Amino acid sequence: MTSTLSTPSLWAIPLGGLGEFGMNMLVLRTGDDIIVIDAGLMFPEQELLGVDIVIPDITYLKQNKRMVRAIVLTHGHEDHIGAIPYILRDLNVPIYGTQFTLALVRKKLEEHGLLDTAKLIEVAAGQKSTIGPFQIEYLHVTHSTIDCVALAVRTPAGVIIHTGDFKIDPTPVDGKPFDLHAFARYGQEGVLALFSDSTNVERPGFTPSERSVVVRLEELFRAAPQKVVVSCFSSSVHRIQQVIDIAGAVGRKIGFVGRSMVDNTEIAHGLGKLHIPDGSVVRPQDIRTYDPKRLVVLASGTQAEPMSALSRIAVDNHRLMSIGENDTVILSARIIPGNEKNIFRMIDHFFRRRVLVYYESGRSAPIHVSGHASQEEQKILLQLVRPKYFVPLHGEYRHLFRHAALAEQVGAVSGQIFLIESGQPIEFTGDGGAYRREPVTAGRVMVDSGSLEEIEDVVIRDRRHLSEDGVVVPIIAIDKHTGRMEISPEIVTRGFLPSEDGQEILARAREVILKTVENSTAEEKTDWNVIKEKIRADLKRYLNKQTSKRPLILPVILEV
Amino acid sequence: MTSTLSTPSLWAIPLGGLGEFGMNMLVLRTGDDIIVIDAGLMFPEQELLGVDIVIPDITYLKQNKRMVRAIVLTHGHEDHIGAIPYILRDLNVPIYGTQFTLALVRKKLEEHGLLDTAKLIEVAAGQKSTIGPFQIEYLHVTHSTIDCVALAVRTPAGVIIHTGDFKIDPTPVDGKPFDLHAFARYGQEGVLALFSDSTNVERPGFTPSERSVVVRLEELFRAAPQKVVVSCFSSSVHRIQQVIDIAGAVGRKIGFVGRSMVDNTEIAHGLGKLHIPDGSVVRPQDIRTYDPKRLVVLASGTQAEPMSALSRIAVDNHRLMSIGENDTVILSARIIPGNEKNIFRMIDHFFRRRVLVYYESGRSAPIHVSGHASQEEQKILLQLVRPKYFVPLHGEYRHLFRHAALAEQVGAVSGQIFLIESGQPIEFTGDGGAYRREPVTAGRVMVDSGSLEEIEDVVIRDRRHLSEDGVVVPIIAIDKHTGRMEISPEIVTRGFLPSEDGQEILARAREVILKTVENSTAEEKTDWNVIKEKIRADLKRYLNKQTSKRPLILPVILEV
Repeated sequence: MTSTLSTPSLWAIPLGGLGEFGMNMLVLRTGDDIIVIDAGLMFPEQELLGVDIVIPDITYLKQNKRMVRAIVLTHGHEDHIGAIPYILRDLNVPIYGTQFTLALVRKKLEEHGLLDTAKLIEVAAGQKSTIGPFQIEYLHVTHSTIDCVALAVRTPAGVIIHTGDFKIDPTPVDGKPFDLHAFARYGQEGVLALFSDSTNVERPGFTPSERSVVVRLEELFRAAPQKVVVSCFSSSVHRIQQVIDIAGAVGRKIGFVGRSMVDNTEIAHGLGKLHIPDGSVVRPQDIRTYDPKRLVVLASGTQAEPMSALSRIAVDNHRLMSIGENDTVILSARIIPGNEKNIFRMIDHFFRRRVLVYYESGRSAPIHVSGHASQEEQKILLQLVRPKYFVPLHGEYRHLFRHAALAEQVGAVSGQIFLIESGQPIEFTGDGGAYRREPVTAGRVMVDSGSLEEIEDVVIRDRRHLSEDGVVVPIIAIDKHTGRMEISPEIVTRGFLPSEDGQEILARAREVILKTVENSTAEEKTDWNVIKEKIRADLKRYLNKQTSKRPLILPVILEV
Repeated sequence: MTSTLSTPSLWAIPLGGLGEFGMNMLVLRTGDDIIVIDAGLMFPEQELLGVDIVIPDITYLKQNKRMVRAIVLTHGHEDHIGAIPYILRDLNVPIYGTQFTLALVRKKLEEHGLLDTAKLIEVAAGQKSTIGPFQIEYLHVTHSTIDCVALAVRTPAGVIIHTGDFKIDPTPVDGKPFDLHAFARYGQEGVLALFSDSTNVERPGFTPSERSVVVRLEELFRAAPQKVVVSCFSSSVHRIQQVIDIAGAVGRKIGFVGRSMVDNTEIAHGLGKLHIPDGSVVRPQDIRTYDPKRLVVLASGTQAEPMSALSRIAVDNHRLMSIGENDTVILSARIIPGNEKNIFRMIDHFFRRRVLVYYESGRSAPIHVSGHASQEEQKILLQLVRPKYFVPLHGEYRHLFRHAALAEQVGAVSGQIFLIESGQPIEFTGDGGAYRREPVTAGRVMVDSGSLEEIEDVVIRDRRHLSEDGVVVPIIAIDKHTGRMEISPEIVTRGFLPSEDGQEILARAREVILKTVENSTAEEKTDWNVIKEKIRADLKRYLNKQTSKRPLILPVILEV
């Protein structure tokens, strides 16, 4: 913070979401004032054993706690709001967001018992907020959920535009198109830097409108001989609205199954964001007996999450409904990479039950479309905003790289294009310059959602070790007076050896321990840590030789 | 085996590959004679912790050991030959295969020290073998590797055709097209049952010829400012030949990197199946210093396997070569579902180094094509063979289902279409009938390749448990004379709690144990298993309440 100019610098510090999908968080700082744009989570990769969610490391914010003025949200997806309950404990600052976004945040805070102390400030597209030296205008953008905004942040150093997640949908379901004019206005005025969504930069052309799924869905609804189950993300309010509308058009009523589906539709309906005609809903307890030819069920669980509604339905084990021959199941969602195995296992269950199951195949008319801009939309945005500087965000490294290359090709950026990752700040100086600065602390914090505790790396490493070759616990009892071993060593193992050969190997392992202790000097014997380490080393060598495995070895010495 | 007719039945018993990808194995039995078609492995899903490979359960074959006459191989991919070293210990029968297939098997058996005792019988497309009551003709098919055959098996009950893996490539790299005439001939004669590859049944149209990658590869080779690295499966001999040919055409020499790439090209070259012009190869030790503008490197590791050549190159940590700005890397292989995360992480490393990296995007001219037939090829095969019965194989359930539906639509099957999974036999009776029969033992055997041992389910379950919440080992020492606890209980944990709060919780856990032992009756105290179980239950309840976790609890009682 050492600008000597009269106009203060603006620092943009990404703490998550650049170089990775998920846990989006961008910090803007000018002088002693900070705002945080989005606070998302990331779902862990399988190799992070026992980790439920991952959130950004907010060390930088904790270090500058008294400067943080607000968290400003672009929309209500988990990768933008999911970390709020975890960081609010450290930083209880006001949260700005649109009506639907805050409704989702409210529900989340309620579950964590944090609602009473939180300060939520509702805003709407077209409105402005002043937060310290930042003036924020909310610009309406289209995406797969509703009430999404981009942010135009006026700072002493210039205007920053953060797109949030967007696509340019000219025919959105709610009739509120992407606000091209607002972006054009800022483009006219002059934008210092554009931060933009890179998700779909690998896709040429335009992302189809949300509305484009109507044709195929209606066709499938009409062709369905029995009941129809549609599964989509419970935050996809547009999709849910379309399913309700099409159901009405073909003379079917609608049931809702799955906690998040029920919760989110209630929230959206309560806010008037979802239109559900009177008399069109089948109550949960009536779904089972309702005429299947007149029924559409909306169910959560598109990613085959183990306890989700759709996973249970797939094995015909849902308390509210059954599934079987000639029922129709439509998976109207993206198959998220990493979930393929589980999703296709679920789909196979439907096939085994002779259910007519439809999923994204990429060949016929779509039953799902993406909520993110493809290349042509990204180009249009760049042309509209024509910023001085450009920073791709929201993507893995290759997406950021290709988005930077796309911007280069478009030629609408007059200054530099910055390819940065989480933790790498840029300083926009008051005189119009922009420079990379020394990295700040950034990274992933793993959270066990049961205990809300952060999990240390060493614990994860142990779990991985345990998961590969199991655990071996050698136990020896030493007389605290004589220092002699009182009894033959015990060995307890789990996840290590099958029972048969195991016995012989373990018997000999006990001899290894005996020998290790015998061969130790009197001095070593008084230092348990030395003895433990010797036992560990000798056993490790022996077991690895015998079994080619490297179990976690945990020697225990009991003083009796 | 209770046919009362004069013509004996033929039993077809799939032991793997139907309802799952991998570990392909089909058993044919007539009277007391059995042949086994293929013996493949499956790479485990991540949730099978510490499992290296998965092979079919061959209990049925062991039970009928004296009847097994031979293993007959269709081609040399791991999912067709990978289980051989493991089952040969139980069933050392002759193995029939083509030259290249057997060369790969030989290498494998050598590594396992089984080559001396194995009986390998080389066959070629167009030839016939008689094995007991089975007469087998080998029919040339095209696929992503070379020397692939389908099998026409003449049995007392009729002719069975097993396609192996195939696509119908009219312009294969080696100039040997799919042998349509052989299939036509059998179709003319009459085929009892067709067993056919379902892999790509979700793809409409035709799979492009292997040759169709030439255009784009040549374009990329010519445009490359520095060296080119191409990674493909080391068994993809066609692809390797094309890379060698194109390299020659654009004036580049070729280097080979990675053990499997070096091994397989040596094998193929030694058999005359791979044409490498004299003087076109750069020796490994010269790769680093060779003019990068005149160099193409073929590297294994398309799936970003942790120790593979390409993974090492991606982090510029390969002893034979460096990588950097303006080098070109081409990933000429399928991204196998489940491997996306690792592969894209590797690709990101290349992007970070400013390498020009090309991977399957599905939009531009292909740099990779599939080796399996799409719908139109599958239809042609059905029309050519027009069997009485049809059994889809080689796919997950939905593939088999859709292949069955496709066959129904084509209408070339005069009798029944059987949708069966591994372990579900069909009996083809001598009078032309075909019936589902009682399931036989079938399933997945998990093998730890280090120890060659089978891993029991319970071990996997423990490992999963360990990997999620860690392990807690409570240890108490009881005086074997008095039955009293000699010292305060010890508790050892790993992968369970972070250190700080942990201490307090564990201190109280020790009190829980003390109380459990104190509250036990004298009778219970003499039965250690009862005491252990009580400790386990009480600790589990306490720890779950305190931490919301369910670690594996392993009580140990030491008699001192």
